[in-house]
Amino acid sequence: MIKVALMGHGVVGSGVAEILEEKASSLKQKAGDDLYCSKILDLRDFPDTAYADRFTKNFDDIASDDSIQIVVEAMGGLHPAYEFVKTCMERGKSVVTSNKELVAEKGAELLALAKEKNVNFFFEASVGGGIPIIRPMHLCLAANRIDKVYGILNGTTNFILTKMIKEQMTFQDALSLAQQLGYAEKDPSADVDGVDACRKICILASLAFGKHVYPKEVYTEGISKITLEDVAYAQSAGYVVKLIGQAKRIADGKNEVMVSPAFVPVENQLSGVDDVFNGVLVKGDETGDVMFYGKGAGKLPTASAVVADVVHIAKSSGTSQSLTWEDSNADTVADISDYENAFYYRLNGPVAKEEIVSLFGAVTYLSRQGQPDDETAFLTGPMKESRAREAEQKLNGIKILGKIRLIG
Amino acid sequence: MIKVALMGHGVVGSGVAEILEEKASSLKQKAGDDLYCSKILDLRDFPDTAYADRFTKNFDDIASDDSIQIVVEAMGGLHPAYEFVKTCMERGKSVVTSNKELVAEKGAELLALAKEKNVNFFFEASVGGGIPIIRPMHLCLAANRIDKVYGILNGTTNFILTKMIKEQMTFQDALSLAQQLGYAEKDPSADVDGVDACRKICILASLAFGKHVYPKEVYTEGISKITLEDVAYAQSAGYVVKLIGQAKRIADGKNEVMVSPAFVPVENQLSGVDDVFNGVLVKGDETGDVMFYGKGAGKLPTASAVVADVVHIAKSSGTSQSLTWEDSNADTVADISDYENAFYYRLNGPVAKEEIVSLFGAVTYLSRQGQPDDETAFLTGPMKESRAREAEQKLNGIKILGKIRLIG
Repeated sequence: MIKVALMGHGVVGSGVAEILEEKASSLKQKAGDDLYCSKILDLRDFPDTAYADRFTKNFDDIASDDSIQIVVEAMGGLHPAYEFVKTCMERGKSVVTSNKELVAEKGAELLALAKEKNVNFFFEASVGGGIPIIRPMHLCLAANRIDKVYGILNGTTNFILTKMIKEQMTFQDALSLAQQLGYAEKDPSADVDGVDACRKICILASLAFGKHVYPKEVYTEGISKITLEDVAYAQSAGYVVKLIGQAKRIADGKNEVMVSPAFVPVENQLSGVDDVFNGVLVKGDETGDVMFYGKGAGKLPTASAVVADVVHIAKSSGTSQSLTWEDSNADTVADISDYENAFYYRLNGPVAKEEIVSLFGAVTYLSRQGQPDDETAFLTGPMKESRAREAEQKLNGIKILGKIRLIG
Repeated sequence: MIKVALMGHGVVGSGVAEILEEKASSLKQKAGDDLYCSKILDLRDFPDTAYADRFTKNFDDIASDDSIQIVVEAMGGLHPAYEFVKTCMERGKSVVTSNKELVAEKGAELLALAKEKNVNFFFEASVGGGIPIIRPMHLCLAANRIDKVYGILNGTTNFILTKMIKEQMTFQDALSLAQQLGYAEKDPSADVDGVDACRKICILASLAFGKHVYPKEVYTEGISKITLEDVAYAQSAGYVVKLIGQAKRIADGKNEVMVSPAFVPVENQLSGVDDVFNGVLVKGDETGDVMFYGKGAGKLPTASAVVADVVHIAKSSGTSQSLTWEDSNADTVADISDYENAFYYRLNGPVAKEEIVSLFGAVTYLSRQGQPDDETAFLTGPMKESRAREAEQKLNGIKILGKIRLIG
């Protein structure tokens, strides 16, 4: 029997406990041994669960119990999750987590500790909920150099944008609906401002490039400024607006990493990823584009990914040498000023065509139903972020109503 | 150093040799040891390759070389691949194959032999080329009961159908183009008649249900009868025609497994899988739908999946107990007569509405540009295959020009 402890009995944690209980026999077959959840750390009481007697409020009951081999961290947040996970590994326990903040901030350190202690630190559920993505990137694409990984990494913002695109709801109305349905928190900023997507692209970028990419290094822009006018212009030109996290390998060991709304062409597979679904495209040098798609959140999808990690650890011996990345200093992520993108602009004012050309180069003008005379919208060709910003500053007296990047 | 032998130096095999050679240092890092391709079995000579001296025409040079731990089978066909693979495993070597026919016909037996000999039999490349699908289903979805797996499994037919849908090419013209581009063989029957897709859905169904599903048990229909008229009717109602392999868990340990053209609604992610791309949707009881998408064939994508299997074996000890399925007798796959599907019909003749209703129940009529007066097309509701066939027989004097199933 392999004893598992659970830290945190919230949405994901309670799902893990339920799956371990209800699927005990099929999991035994897959893991080669019984998986038994012997202790659950939570400050609350859950007298009505089938395993009410296994709760503890004291972390040390888990840390100092040598019979526990695998610990699931589903508390969320950086502290005390970080300290608890560290202690568990130092005492020879493998750890599975669904905590994206923990992996995005401390992944390199915790992976190194796992190697040192000959245990595992697995985190399939930290990106894409129940969608297999970490393990396929790490194991199935092992013969590839991963040059680019990008996608729709946050279900809440994708739900909001889908409502704006398909039902012409305003951002505020779509956000309120998402809150009513439980897809968005009361304080929706972590989703809406791109913080959650940023953590996930950091994890994917670190895995793809072998160097830790920290959230603070990543230019992150949310969706709260997107309007129905932007959505209409996008549609007129064959695009949909999506919140995209992207990481791209460029020259000299540098990488471009960014989270921002983007015009996605309808030919791109990501354009059809709607509602709360997530989709991640991985570009390998041998395989080309591979996409992973599914529900990116939710109790049971996420919990099932955690349990799959537990099963994998149960049947493995020693640490996974290959699931790892190095720590990094400030030079892994290139400066955003140098990224090259095409842009969509929506300006408040009729601007002379010669002026636009002199500032932005050749552009494609867009039109929409109900477009006021003093509104100008266009797509630029690829240009450096710094050049785009210079051009904006020269737009004397013209207000920029919208600016969104294009992706391929 | 881990010695690898290669059987077959065709498209995939030569790709494997190249990747092992060119990516030696990054693969060493991932596998934890050097991977060295020490022998290559092929009846032809390849004097211009960097490893010309390692070729042999004699299988026994590989079978009796105890220093070889992993053998890659990329010969294709059932014989002598089957006998060679068996001999290798009996002599304690792990085997990686890209040969879908071998896995679809002999998977249960070879997986059992692998367990008995404490070696591995891996076949990620047999389905979906470079798209990770076998390992994610087996490892990442380990906490799920897989209830359904379906998708576009053959790139050649998907290319042909895409040309028919997007460029109104006839089936014959699209097939000729596919042959010109090297996507289709001179004798295209294995692709066009669904044989290739059938082998792949057998492998996925066996893995999903834990019981071997043999190609001969699976109703298989190709795309050669699909016309531009069918494509036009599909588009008029919000569908695209795709060749779909599907496997569904039903009651009493039975399963529905089938390959056929299908009307796929544009809302379904598979509808956007075009050209030579493949897409597979897997429905788990915890995760819901998860999709895997990418290029389903090609030298380097497929070879990179083979090499990833080699890396996985190199860093594992012993056999993978969980990658397995049981052999089966004739009762794993349910009789097609009992499958329930909605159908599209195109009939040669104006048929009285009362007659249609009495035979097929309530239907939705379709129309297309240029529709002749004597052509009737409609979609039925869900009905048993057997009832549909009965109804067809009662269509006195009316010719059935088209009949295609709908999928959800």
